[in-house]
Amino acid sequence: MADEEQTSDQILEEDTMQEEQSTDVIQTDDISGSDDSPKQEKPENTEKPENTKEKPKSVKEKLKRDMEQMKEKFSKLLLGEDMSGGGKGVSSALALSNVITNLAASVFGEQHKLAPMKEDSKKRWRKEVDWVLSVTNYISEFVPVQHTARDGSNMEIMVTKQRKDLIMNIPALKKLDKMLTDCLDNFKDQKEFWYVSKDANESEKGVQRNDKWWLPTVKVPPGGLSEDSRKWMQKQKDCANQVLKASMAINAEVLAEMQIPETYLETLPKNARDSLGETIYKSITVEFFDSGQFLASMDFSSEHKVLDLKNKVEASMIIWKRKMTQKESRSSWGSSAKMERRELFEERAETILLLLKQRFPGLPQSSLEMSKIESNKDVGHAVLESYSRVLESLANTVMNRIEDVLYADEVAQNSSESNDEESDQTSTSTTISDVMGWKGAQGET
Amino acid sequence: MADEEQTSDQILEEDTMQEEQSTDVIQTDDISGSDDSPKQEKPENTEKPENTKEKPKSVKEKLKRDMEQMKEKFSKLLLGEDMSGGGKGVSSALALSNVITNLAASVFGEQHKLAPMKEDSKKRWRKEVDWVLSVTNYISEFVPVQHTARDGSNMEIMVTKQRKDLIMNIPALKKLDKMLTDCLDNFKDQKEFWYVSKDANESEKGVQRNDKWWLPTVKVPPGGLSEDSRKWMQKQKDCANQVLKASMAINAEVLAEMQIPETYLETLPKNARDSLGETIYKSITVEFFDSGQFLASMDFSSEHKVLDLKNKVEASMIIWKRKMTQKESRSSWGSSAKMERRELFEERAETILLLLKQRFPGLPQSSLEMSKIESNKDVGHAVLESYSRVLESLANTVMNRIEDVLYADEVAQNSSESNDEESDQTSTSTTISDVMGWKGAQGET
Repeated sequence: MADEEQTSDQILEEDTMQEEQSTDVIQTDDISGSDDSPKQEKPENTEKPENTKEKPKSVKEKLKRDMEQMKEKFSKLLLGEDMSGGGKGVSSALALSNVITNLAASVFGEQHKLAPMKEDSKKRWRKEVDWVLSVTNYISEFVPVQHTARDGSNMEIMVTKQRKDLIMNIPALKKLDKMLTDCLDNFKDQKEFWYVSKDANESEKGVQRNDKWWLPTVKVPPGGLSEDSRKWMQKQKDCANQVLKASMAINAEVLAEMQIPETYLETLPKNARDSLGETIYKSITVEFFDSGQFLASMDFSSEHKVLDLKNKVEASMIIWKRKMTQKESRSSWGSSAKMERRELFEERAETILLLLKQRFPGLPQSSLEMSKIESNKDVGHAVLESYSRVLESLANTVMNRIEDVLYADEVAQNSSESNDEESDQTSTSTTISDVMGWKGAQGET
Repeated sequence: MADEEQTSDQILEEDTMQEEQSTDVIQTDDISGSDDSPKQEKPENTEKPENTKEKPKSVKEKLKRDMEQMKEKFSKLLLGEDMSGGGKGVSSALALSNVITNLAASVFGEQHKLAPMKEDSKKRWRKEVDWVLSVTNYISEFVPVQHTARDGSNMEIMVTKQRKDLIMNIPALKKLDKMLTDCLDNFKDQKEFWYVSKDANESEKGVQRNDKWWLPTVKVPPGGLSEDSRKWMQKQKDCANQVLKASMAINAEVLAEMQIPETYLETLPKNARDSLGETIYKSITVEFFDSGQFLASMDFSSEHKVLDLKNKVEASMIIWKRKMTQKESRSSWGSSAKMERRELFEERAETILLLLKQRFPGLPQSSLEMSKIESNKDVGHAVLESYSRVLESLANTVMNRIEDVLYADEVAQNSSESNDEESDQTSTSTTISDVMGWKGAQGET
């Protein structure tokens, strides 16, 4: 789709003599000076003073080019993806959400190795994320503040402030973003593992977890990593895990804030039994419910099946919830036993969803989530949801790449202990494809 | 309203630590390099190479500031004026239209004298109009073009091109814009007339047409302008008039393209008689109709009354039109005499509207026009309509200021011919307040 746009732009440019607009997809430099948060280091900026002295014209030209790119990006956002100009496109909220999703896909899509991001990609990411985030700077609300008058008396006055959810979460997400890219940068100087192409000879090839044939293989020294390296890797893993958990939490919070769209409610079956099917319905509504046992009995042999279960349980949860509130408002003398049962089942459904989320990070969006994102009109929620979602996804990828190395290390250790038996995979697996060992090129980003 | 926004931004900035964003309302310099049309001169650009060498840092800083301003402008557009971020604001189309309207009001609002625009204002105008117009660069449509293959055979292929109405009108409007600001620039070196404050002593004061007490008075040499100056003034007037006519034509064309909103149709009376009132209805539906006579019989003693007539006639025109099409679709055997009468009246209404438009340029928008602008979702139409409307308004103001000078010239000529009788105003009057000599501070821009 990005290619398609590119093509039309080129034709447009040739045919209609547009002003100065560049259609480069990948930027080669960034001098917009976008910082992360005030206290963080600015590695990209250190060379700037020299640049300014040596080739001022070039700096100016780059800024101008950035400006043209920004104009183009914002113009397309304003058109809401309806390039006919007819205003029949998507809302600003969805347009911004899509911009982040697509940007992340093209910037992080190729993170197959533990290595610093390409300089170009990183700069493009920083620059374009900064454009999108800048919109949230202008989202404000009235809040009361204590004001001390000259005579010392206190009074409450109303002032305009950036909206609270944005004040809280945007800096947090920027920090997580920085942590994650710094984490990747840390791998710049590591020498104890390296990658060998998946197309190399069998003899040269390294280790590959779970038949992920589309990834390069990992090589470690005979006998495995040094103790220091192993500890260091664990530290990186902890860092990525922290980013994963935090961005998951923000994403879940924002999605919970979004209203359930009418269009979703209209597609719901009449009752939870219809949604879940007889077998699953019975498993959830048994007298003594054990969530671990429940999950153990489920068929998770493909990502599709996990997602299908999530969709069904999510739908049932909402059906039960709605019946509870409808009952409450309709009559105060409703069958209280029935109500209690619904409440119980609804809680069980929530537990299952939570466990699924923990066990399968990086699972694609459920029907409810997609429906919420598409119907959402709130620009602030759109930015928070999309930014946290792509960070969650990237953190998950980094975790996986670290697991790959730790697995190769383990294999090497076992071999050097002359243990010729096939080593079991004992490292903690965190993703759905790690757990399942699914074959095929599932997207991980 | 601009002041209000300014205030909230300042508070926002103090309280929430925003990044680099400036809230200057008036820009002091423009180095965005926005050109008008490829063939026109670029007076602002000639000094740039020197600037670049002498103070590269400053150029960079200015570009960065421009970029921050652009980010702010586009961010607010994306929020559709709903600063809560909730997406309950106006469409992109209306937001862009309002930006142009407000920009023109703050830049041209003070054009009380024939003099070059202030450098600051002109640069701000060029820069911000350029931002808005850039959106139209990305509005495209599929068009068939003849393609000659290598073997010489011809085929039709579809390519993406900027939308036709925009290809036609945006460069035209930019040219009109340039003509008008150039026209104002031309007055830089003129020495044969000057302005004296409206608050000056009676003895020092110059001439003022039509009790426009809020304008400075015009002084010309005793005996009036030189023959050359008079001819030169006429040339400037012709130029402004050309801009006025052309922008009026584009504005009318775009407004005609916009659909009549349902909300407007719902407020229409059931028939034209109810809309026009008995007297006017009779005047339009007489057997022998003379538009000149009709207008002569109307009460145009205030702008409000002219606008009221326009609203009524516009409503009747639409009522008649709708009845004609409804009849056609309902039954083919409708009373053909009645149909013919409606067609006749509808044509008369159109004639009246055309005459009103010619006689009273600068009349505020009618109910129908406002309704169309508010409901319009087409971004291209929004930009064309608002840009042509503000140019029409500015051209009208310039025409008026030229008339002021020509009138002062005439008064001086008459005085020097020792003609002590009160001189009649014989110069062509083109605006509603010129014709009426309304008292009070009617806005002219």
